[in-house]
Amino acid sequence: MSDPILLKNARLAFDVADLVDISMRGGGITAIGTGLAQDGHEILDCEGRLVTPGLIDCHTHIIHGGDRSGEFEMRLEGATYQDIARAGGGIVSSVAATRALDPEALVAASLSRIDALLCEGVTTLEIKSGYGLSIESELNMLRAARRVEALRPVRVVTTWLAAHAMPKDFDGSKTDYIHDVAIVGLRAAHAEGLVDAVDAFCESIAFSAEDIRPLFEVAQELGLPVKLHTEQLTRSGGTALAAEFGALSVDHFEYAGEAEVAAIAASGTVAVLLPGAYYMLGETQKPPVAVLRKAGVPMALATDCNPGTSPLSSLLTTMNMGAVLFGLTVRECLDAVTVHAAQALGRAGEIGVLKPGAAADLAVWDVERPAQLVGRLGHHPLHKRIFKGAVTHG
Amino acid sequence: MSDPILLKNARLAFDVADLVDISMRGGGITAIGTGLAQDGHEILDCEGRLVTPGLIDCHTHIIHGGDRSGEFEMRLEGATYQDIARAGGGIVSSVAATRALDPEALVAASLSRIDALLCEGVTTLEIKSGYGLSIESELNMLRAARRVEALRPVRVVTTWLAAHAMPKDFDGSKTDYIHDVAIVGLRAAHAEGLVDAVDAFCESIAFSAEDIRPLFEVAQELGLPVKLHTEQLTRSGGTALAAEFGALSVDHFEYAGEAEVAAIAASGTVAVLLPGAYYMLGETQKPPVAVLRKAGVPMALATDCNPGTSPLSSLLTTMNMGAVLFGLTVRECLDAVTVHAAQALGRAGEIGVLKPGAAADLAVWDVERPAQLVGRLGHHPLHKRIFKGAVTHG
Ligand SMILES: [Zn+2]
Ligand SMILES: [Zn+2]
Repeated sequence: MSDPILLKNARLAFDVADLVDISMRGGGITAIGTGLAQDGHEILDCEGRLVTPGLIDCHTHIIHGGDRSGEFEMRLEGATYQDIARAGGGIVSSVAATRALDPEALVAASLSRIDALLCEGVTTLEIKSGYGLSIESELNMLRAARRVEALRPVRVVTTWLAAHAMPKDFDGSKTDYIHDVAIVGLRAAHAEGLVDAVDAFCESIAFSAEDIRPLFEVAQELGLPVKLHTEQLTRSGGTALAAEFGALSVDHFEYAGEAEVAAIAASGTVAVLLPGAYYMLGETQKPPVAVLRKAGVPMALATDCNPGTSPLSSLLTTMNMGAVLFGLTVRECLDAVTVHAAQALGRAGEIGVLKPGAAADLAVWDVERPAQLVGRLGHHPLHKRIFKGAVTHG
Repeated sequence: MSDPILLKNARLAFDVADLVDISMRGGGITAIGTGLAQDGHEILDCEGRLVTPGLIDCHTHIIHGGDRSGEFEMRLEGATYQDIARAGGGIVSSVAATRALDPEALVAASLSRIDALLCEGVTTLEIKSGYGLSIESELNMLRAARRVEALRPVRVVTTWLAAHAMPKDFDGSKTDYIHDVAIVGLRAAHAEGLVDAVDAFCESIAFSAEDIRPLFEVAQELGLPVKLHTEQLTRSGGTALAAEFGALSVDHFEYAGEAEVAAIAASGTVAVLLPGAYYMLGETQKPPVAVLRKAGVPMALATDCNPGTSPLSSLLTTMNMGAVLFGLTVRECLDAVTVHAAQALGRAGEIGVLKPGAAADLAVWDVERPAQLVGRLGHHPLHKRIFKGAVTHG
């Protein structure tokens, strides 16, 4: 079934008013209201079910080779990070496994994870590079990311994350790596049309804000928005840099304090919270949700789907963790994977909202209220998924 | 496809030996080995996939009416338990919603939760009463539980849990309730063939060990095994009673110490750990896993699927929580939902193991190693599910 479609009897989130109709044509929403005329549209009766924008997973490393469940097993048996490194584990193993695959094989290795998200109503997916750590492998990761749109009904937003870690085989300093790989590769990737945004990992174990600055300057020159993994494991100081460059988002943000929140409130930056890594790592430092809320900073939630610290391919589970672990309200959790996630991708108004003119990306759920999506774990509430005006699931 | 079936090229968990074949006939496993002859069996080639016993969820309250996501939402907005009670929430609301449904409607309200478990390879499911709290409603819950086997390919093991809470409308003491409802109802339920085991909630907010003793005495008289919710929120002292009656399991067990572990080690009782409630309630007191391990007490894991404190219908998520939150190893997590869960249901040797003579209840997974089942969240790894020798999923 594809548009023109008229959804009848849709229940909107946090809206006590009557059920509404939603009309779609040409891949976009054309009207929302009661008693809309059929006017050549095919009718889909929601029978009072909750209808939300299609969900948006705005931070993933979902394209990668290999599998690190062996490390998970070793850690539970008491192995240290040194033991795991000696056994060839850690990010090094993901880099080796990713470099071994061409774009087609990378997509194939990742489709089951992507399909798991789509089954939960995800219609837009951000995908980062960052496990190649050489120009060609980083390009291959984003070539794979672009290929996903041809294979599955989903929007993909790509992010250049060559500044994710220093590869073991790079002969030079961090400054050299940023210039010779992250920046040279970014120009090549941009020329090939592979890049929607530029990201880096600002952390004591990765790159400092000053290491990252030249990369962000090139992003700015190319007209690409930036975002930053920062304040995850320590107060790493990346937030000031991100705010200075008007970043779309700062991601993780557990160790941020009042100053960091004030900085991003001023720069209009979204805080992307990633409870999957917090949960899997057994962390105890929570992001400053109350401070963010008070400052009016939009909060997004994402899976961070990655092979090491967040092997999580469920955005519904992520929403539940946002509530249970970080204390977000139900409304904040839903906004975090719709309107605020869209803003974190620079697509505010275009996706993540139900209004005339926005994309006809919607999820119809077998529930009546958002709390029933957020408050449960392990259920399968998706009734229908609509992507660009076409029913693609259910 | 149904038996006689010969599974070829199955990979067994924690077995570095060659791939094996598994033959099934008459609903049971008849042989496991290499190069088994076809001998009239239909062949199913596992192509090196991991094969485990069908999973067993040995502690659920999955049959119930109503929905308590509204309370979840209120708590996140700062409501106290008193606020929720004033708004008609808490167990009272589940009791009212459950009493309103006949057995057929109760099953219908619960099937989507049951189906979610089956999609993850669950072949045996324990279901407790405990939201009726009147003789007729408790009977209806177990009538509904028995009906599940006619509607879905799954074994159901039933538990009489009338001693779950004191109903608000009962005119009398806890002692009266145990005698007039829990015991009188148990005799009626047993006469109707509805009861496989007897459980109670031993906690300061529910019943004391001495309240529960007469109920366990009647269970013993009827030849029914007992189990006990105990040491969940406080060191409630139920373990000694459970051990005295040779309980199949003690469930929750977070506040247990060395003495409780020693008692159940001596009585051959399984510790059933329920990380879903621990996670949802934000608890910090973990069960004494190291002490249990040292004492050789078998540990099981279960969803505790219930509308209030553990709205969780994923046993794979539960295994992941067992590892991440409670520190169980991968092998312990797999044993916890197979061999030890079978023991917690009094079905050791019959289900939860792969050996000739056991039930032909199996799961074939799209992974090679148990760590790949336990170490990820939100994936869909089930390839085929086999119940009593028949392929029922995939
Ligand atoms: Zn990340
Ligand atoms: Zn329970």
